[in-house]
Amino acid sequence: MRNNSETIDKISERSGERTRVCGWIANKRSSGKIRFLQLRDGTGVIQCVVMADRVTPEVFELADHIPYESSVIVTGQVQKDPRSSIGFEIAVDNIEVISEALPYPISKKDHGVAFLMDHRHLWLRSSRQNALMKIRSVLTRSARSYFDELGFISVEAPILTPTACEGTTSLFEVAYFDRSAYLTQSGQLYGEAAAMALGKIYVYGPTFRAEKSKTRRHLTEFWMIEPEMAFCELPDAIDLAEGLICRIVSDTLNQCSPQLKVLERDLSRLELVKPPFPRLTYTEAIDILKQKGMDIEWGADLGGDEESVLSGAFDKPVFVTHYPADIKAFYMKRDPTNDRLALAVDLLAPEGYGEIIGGGQREDSLEALEHRIDEHGLDKEPLEWYLDLRRYGSVPHAGFGMGIERALAWISGIHHVRETIAFPRLLDRLYP
Amino acid sequence: MRNNSETIDKISERSGERTRVCGWIANKRSSGKIRFLQLRDGTGVIQCVVMADRVTPEVFELADHIPYESSVIVTGQVQKDPRSSIGFEIAVDNIEVISEALPYPISKKDHGVAFLMDHRHLWLRSSRQNALMKIRSVLTRSARSYFDELGFISVEAPILTPTACEGTTSLFEVAYFDRSAYLTQSGQLYGEAAAMALGKIYVYGPTFRAEKSKTRRHLTEFWMIEPEMAFCELPDAIDLAEGLICRIVSDTLNQCSPQLKVLERDLSRLELVKPPFPRLTYTEAIDILKQKGMDIEWGADLGGDEESVLSGAFDKPVFVTHYPADIKAFYMKRDPTNDRLALAVDLLAPEGYGEIIGGGQREDSLEALEHRIDEHGLDKEPLEWYLDLRRYGSVPHAGFGMGIERALAWISGIHHVRETIAFPRLLDRLYP
Repeated sequence: MRNNSETIDKISERSGERTRVCGWIANKRSSGKIRFLQLRDGTGVIQCVVMADRVTPEVFELADHIPYESSVIVTGQVQKDPRSSIGFEIAVDNIEVISEALPYPISKKDHGVAFLMDHRHLWLRSSRQNALMKIRSVLTRSARSYFDELGFISVEAPILTPTACEGTTSLFEVAYFDRSAYLTQSGQLYGEAAAMALGKIYVYGPTFRAEKSKTRRHLTEFWMIEPEMAFCELPDAIDLAEGLICRIVSDTLNQCSPQLKVLERDLSRLELVKPPFPRLTYTEAIDILKQKGMDIEWGADLGGDEESVLSGAFDKPVFVTHYPADIKAFYMKRDPTNDRLALAVDLLAPEGYGEIIGGGQREDSLEALEHRIDEHGLDKEPLEWYLDLRRYGSVPHAGFGMGIERALAWISGIHHVRETIAFPRLLDRLYP
Repeated sequence: MRNNSETIDKISERSGERTRVCGWIANKRSSGKIRFLQLRDGTGVIQCVVMADRVTPEVFELADHIPYESSVIVTGQVQKDPRSSIGFEIAVDNIEVISEALPYPISKKDHGVAFLMDHRHLWLRSSRQNALMKIRSVLTRSARSYFDELGFISVEAPILTPTACEGTTSLFEVAYFDRSAYLTQSGQLYGEAAAMALGKIYVYGPTFRAEKSKTRRHLTEFWMIEPEMAFCELPDAIDLAEGLICRIVSDTLNQCSPQLKVLERDLSRLELVKPPFPRLTYTEAIDILKQKGMDIEWGADLGGDEESVLSGAFDKPVFVTHYPADIKAFYMKRDPTNDRLALAVDLLAPEGYGEIIGGGQREDSLEALEHRIDEHGLDKEPLEWYLDLRRYGSVPHAGFGMGIERALAWISGIHHVRETIAFPRLLDRLYP
């Protein structure tokens, strides 16, 4: 049915021509003997001008009364219009209705978030959500391309796992035939195995945390990209992360200019994101927080408030390294010069967004790792395969995970991660 | 630690130079005063020649006794060697052991499949599994690029869903706080919602079926790429699928020649995969099967045996369309010229591999869809959002899903899908 029709993103190629556009009525207004329809087709929005003296009375009447979000085929001439954000409008000859919509539930008035989330499948059609989904698509492609071009092999980690990776309190349990499985919290452990086979790999996939957090940074289902490199150490992971962030910011700036404009993003803040990023140790970070009047002592984890204050102190993303080992996961390698510290790194995004990357160098000593598993009270049996990586040719290795939704929230400048994924899952949200 | 070291895939750039290579001992043999070590680093395998008169007695002794899969740093001169598959070998000056391996469990003898699957994290290091993972990485990138270049927006469908998509008998149930959720069987329904917002989209992600099938074509967790297009009909989906298959075959042939060689793939069979592919109706397919002596009647679903016979009758992948509506899912649009038929399409891969793509045109009438949901005994409430897509600007739309593992098994020419994913999940397999 797209025969002889054009999509709005390519309408400039039909300048002066008569063409057909398939789409939905996104908005309309009238002015005397003229009706203005905003037609959207997913690739863009174009104004269609319906003049009483150019169309039949039936079509003019239709332009007046057609409900929002009805699907139509508009025929008309593509004309330059300097006032249009896309530079063109359509002088309408005819409108053919594919399907007339029922009264559309989302209007211009302020809807509550719960209402919009209940109608997420329709809310996605709004210009703001449309922009976010397009930036997301560019961001994920950009991140993958960054690793592809560096020779990383993409590997899928399993979603159904026999055990926990990031602590046992936030696991979703699945009835797996006659036993239990758990949804993965991170692809990292499997990524480590793959790195020992393939050298440099990245995992892209969904991860799950059954956290009862209702913050603007938490989803129960979120996507991560997780590179892992054999024969690499903490500084290599930091350099890689810096390159990744610069790449995704640069690609979204270059490819998503109209979308960032819809979101009213302050681009000058993104344009500051150039290497090198500041690199602080956790100990230095605590000192800064204390200077800024925060009530925090060495040894405490950085919460959302601390991350916001710390990242607000810099124009660029900031790396924080060498955290106390006690507040980090069992697989973190200790700093050989100070056993209380882990060779961990987090990247805090500026403008108060906080952590978007977490990673570090992994423990490569079998003995030390076994000891840590005991210390953390974890069951060793389901981790035997992971211990094997230290039994058979263990090597220094490092990597990190970047949360797609948090990175996108920062780059897009939006407040809550729930708008950064098509169908967000939260503590109280499983529909649609 | 990679300072001044080179990866094996780039060793030709160091021809004649002295360099370091980090890797694992994949194999070794001795011949008089020479020891040959096969060093692998994930990017390739290179022969390292250790001559008694070129190294210290300690290093020569080490080359003799170092266990398989120990991690080492080899230093030596890169020399051309026409007998080598990569064209180079290393004349060793020194070997530094990073970590000596325990006796490696996987040897050259025939291990049973269960043993290899128990050691999947190590089995991935073998040249065959390594080749498969690299082809997979190229295939998934190729498929995504195909859609990216055509202007499709990538969208992530939710993994945790409130309801079934492909029938209720094969659902994995998840304890989601105080209620139940189900692992997605397909991203399609959500892809349809996204297509109404964005025009052309594709979903790439894991899907789950709790099927108790123990066949060479079934995993409980598998990945699909699922494009969906608004304002499109069945023939558009078929054309798109043909283009996708040609693209992934061409990219893997061009980029994975060494890997396909490791797998001893008959490339002449892949080189036949050019458009156009044969297109049969289900009714024509039944006739062919009957002519070939199969005991099947019109109305029965095509099983693995039928698909093998049918696909074996053609050199190229073959499309089968217009299946009986009764054996297809509730969301399939009926053929307007024959209400007993669904506007469905499957693509069967040649050489007996069978279905690798399933899709079709979706029901766009609200009334018809409500009727089908009742007929299929499905609960309407969790599908209200899906019905909304027909209430608010319904349009003809079509799409399909390609199973990554099945497509990869065919292109790689391997028997069982369990080798096509890094960590396969099967009825009796959840570890590692």
